Amino acid sequence: MTSKTAEINSARLKALLDGVNAFGANPATGGFNRPGFSDADMAVRDWLAGQMETDGLAVSRDQAGNLFGRLGPAEGACVMAGSHLDTVPEGGAFDGALGVAVALECARAIRDAGLALETPLVVVATSEEEGRFGGMLGSQTISGRVTPDWIRTAEDADGVRLADAVRAQDLDPSRLGEAAWPAGSIKAFLELHIEQGPVLESEGLPIGIVDAVSGVLVLGVTFRGTANHSGTTPMHLRADAFLGLAETGSAIRGVIDRVGSDQSRVTIGKVDLKPNFPHTIAGEAEFTMIIRDTSAKVMADLRGEIETAIRQAAMSHGLAFDIEERSHLPPMALDAGVRDAIVATATRLNLPHRIMPSGAGHDAQTMQAFCPAGLIFVPSRGGISHAPEEWTDWPHIEKGAELMLNTICRLTGAADRSL
Amino acid sequence: MTSKTAEINSARLKALLDGVNAFGANPATGGFNRPGFSDADMAVRDWLAGQMETDGLAVSRDQAGNLFGRLGPAEGACVMAGSHLDTVPEGGAFDGALGVAVALECARAIRDAGLALETPLVVVATSEEEGRFGGMLGSQTISGRVTPDWIRTAEDADGVRLADAVRAQDLDPSRLGEAAWPAGSIKAFLELHIEQGPVLESEGLPIGIVDAVSGVLVLGVTFRGTANHSGTTPMHLRADAFLGLAETGSAIRGVIDRVGSDQSRVTIGKVDLKPNFPHTIAGEAEFTMIIRDTSAKVMADLRGEIETAIRQAAMSHGLAFDIEERSHLPPMALDAGVRDAIVATATRLNLPHRIMPSGAGHDAQTMQAFCPAGLIFVPSRGGISHAPEEWTDWPHIEKGAELMLNTICRLTGAADRSL
Repeated sequence: MTSKTAEINSARLKALLDGVNAFGANPATGGFNRPGFSDADMAVRDWLAGQMETDGLAVSRDQAGNLFGRLGPAEGACVMAGSHLDTVPEGGAFDGALGVAVALECARAIRDAGLALETPLVVVATSEEEGRFGGMLGSQTISGRVTPDWIRTAEDADGVRLADAVRAQDLDPSRLGEAAWPAGSIKAFLELHIEQGPVLESEGLPIGIVDAVSGVLVLGVTFRGTANHSGTTPMHLRADAFLGLAETGSAIRGVIDRVGSDQSRVTIGKVDLKPNFPHTIAGEAEFTMIIRDTSAKVMADLRGEIETAIRQAAMSHGLAFDIEERSHLPPMALDAGVRDAIVATATRLNLPHRIMPSGAGHDAQTMQAFCPAGLIFVPSRGGISHAPEEWTDWPHIEKGAELMLNTICRLTGAADRSL
Repeated sequence: MTSKTAEINSARLKALLDGVNAFGANPATGGFNRPGFSDADMAVRDWLAGQMETDGLAVSRDQAGNLFGRLGPAEGACVMAGSHLDTVPEGGAFDGALGVAVALECARAIRDAGLALETPLVVVATSEEEGRFGGMLGSQTISGRVTPDWIRTAEDADGVRLADAVRAQDLDPSRLGEAAWPAGSIKAFLELHIEQGPVLESEGLPIGIVDAVSGVLVLGVTFRGTANHSGTTPMHLRADAFLGLAETGSAIRGVIDRVGSDQSRVTIGKVDLKPNFPHTIAGEAEFTMIIRDTSAKVMADLRGEIETAIRQAAMSHGLAFDIEERSHLPPMALDAGVRDAIVATATRLNLPHRIMPSGAGHDAQTMQAFCPAGLIFVPSRGGISHAPEEWTDWPHIEKGAELMLNTICRLTGAADRSL
């Protein structure tokens, strides 16, 4: 037991977040632009490295663009905490940046309280989480999952090769593999992130503690019928690709009712009809179908039922169809031990919270394949993210930061401030 | 009774059609480009006027671009026969042009047979039927339905004003009104046109005789929900505008079963989701809904049921919606007397035929508001039109031309060749 306590300095945290968001800000839109390996993304890393040095952390960087600041013992397995610094184009102020700022504020609070750490704390700012080259690049390199083949072939949407983008920032793509941490070197990974969904807000809770990250199956579906004149073609002589799409979309609710769970999400978000003229029956309807759930079994069942619905819609409207699997990320349960530690800490601090899955992917999910990982959510107003309107109320951020700080103290063996 | 007979000269008709299609042909695509008041559209009119003069017809033109060639008595009410010469961009070889060529071939056949006409025959090539400025401009000016207000405001899709397009072809937009024919000056209007649909081909018939033209109601419908992350937004917290569209589309069959007829056509051909990203729930779905039938009562019933389906879909998915009437052309029954004359002629000539409605609009429909009008269809291969692939087999064209010739002879009081 100790009398030393670490405390979040709210004003300092806010100044740190604002400091990060001075990079890539677009005053015209209110959005932020720090795509992975862009100049703004590298500049913010230089600036944050300077902050960490001033804070007395031992700073290191790798060839993947990841930035680390170590507090406490120079040797031995660490607790790592942080998130990413890159943004989507015209993204918001909180996605990623908040988690990095909170982790560094925790290190500052521990240092200021003069707490001794049994286990070192490493604050991390990962790189290219948002997907310019597929996403999660920083956490995948740390956890040793990036292969030379992938590095050679990865390109962004404009056809810029990953290797060239990395090289343009004076990093060496052939040395990305060296960014992998040795097995056992990270005792636990902790991330705070905005929820990017409406659940916490709708339930009036400041904190979510994530137990699992949904899998994501992306299907590309095409119905092919016959483009014809909408006035001269009788209904019974049509092969209307739009009607196949409509019937498939209308089947979603029933499919989830039959084989889905509370965590099932099925979405048709992108639709392209051809020729897409008012007076022409659609000859082709191409669309994406995204299936998510926290259970691999439920995802497989949803997929089966959706494919049956597509087959039936095609038959019913005289259409050809094909279904292409574009990507498939299985669900990932986060570490139960880390989750229990976060829950126990939240309970002790009297922070209202719920255990919940994450529908979006995060670095914590990638790290879980390498070490025990935990993920704390704070609410997103209106569930909005990846847009300038992204917002989290400051009192919620303070509660999230307090939970992260106390969890870090618990896992690093720092003096617990209230016991 | 007389022994003189008029006969279609198939080779001459084909040469005439080829002559027309020498204008605006695009060898790269096989398509034809004679948009209303384009240079190609005016050049083909000059060329055809020369043909008519050589044929001994009395040629006249008006300020709307219509071209007329009169055979027979110089005075008195006429029988008018023809179609339009303009095309959609990259249109086919038959839409419009075939009806003009057949009408002129009929005049040539009557002249060659030395038949005397009690009633003059006027061959017409109407202008701007296809819709660069809204369509049916030629037949609307002939029938006196174009107003100075409309002439002042009409524009094409590129923002070119009708008045400027007319002026650029040395025509006087302020004199378009003078193109109106006096009441009673046209005893009957006859048009041969390709079906542009698959009905005749599917029934193996060379001839359709049109009894009515479907009305066309174009609705613009918008569902408004909330664009949100497809992974983090639970199904019960979504307002997915796409699902409103899907449910509306799926309701079409049932609506037609309940209140529609064999002639009902309901089409959603153009769909725009916003933002139209795979991982984002559609915040907005904008689409066109086109309702057609030959009965005004059925059209009203279809509209009522469709609007109910839209309301229900909005309620079911928590969406706002609005329905905008973009245009509404009521159904038009063609003249029963002219139709009976065409049917009697087809029966006498042993031409297999059926009475059928037209799902597309034609000059005959505009003319019907002014004088008795009749419309003969020949088959469209695969129902295709408005595309280079547009095709009608030549034996079908010959039968259609034969029917037109004999109907003209009947209505102009020319000697009937077989009686």
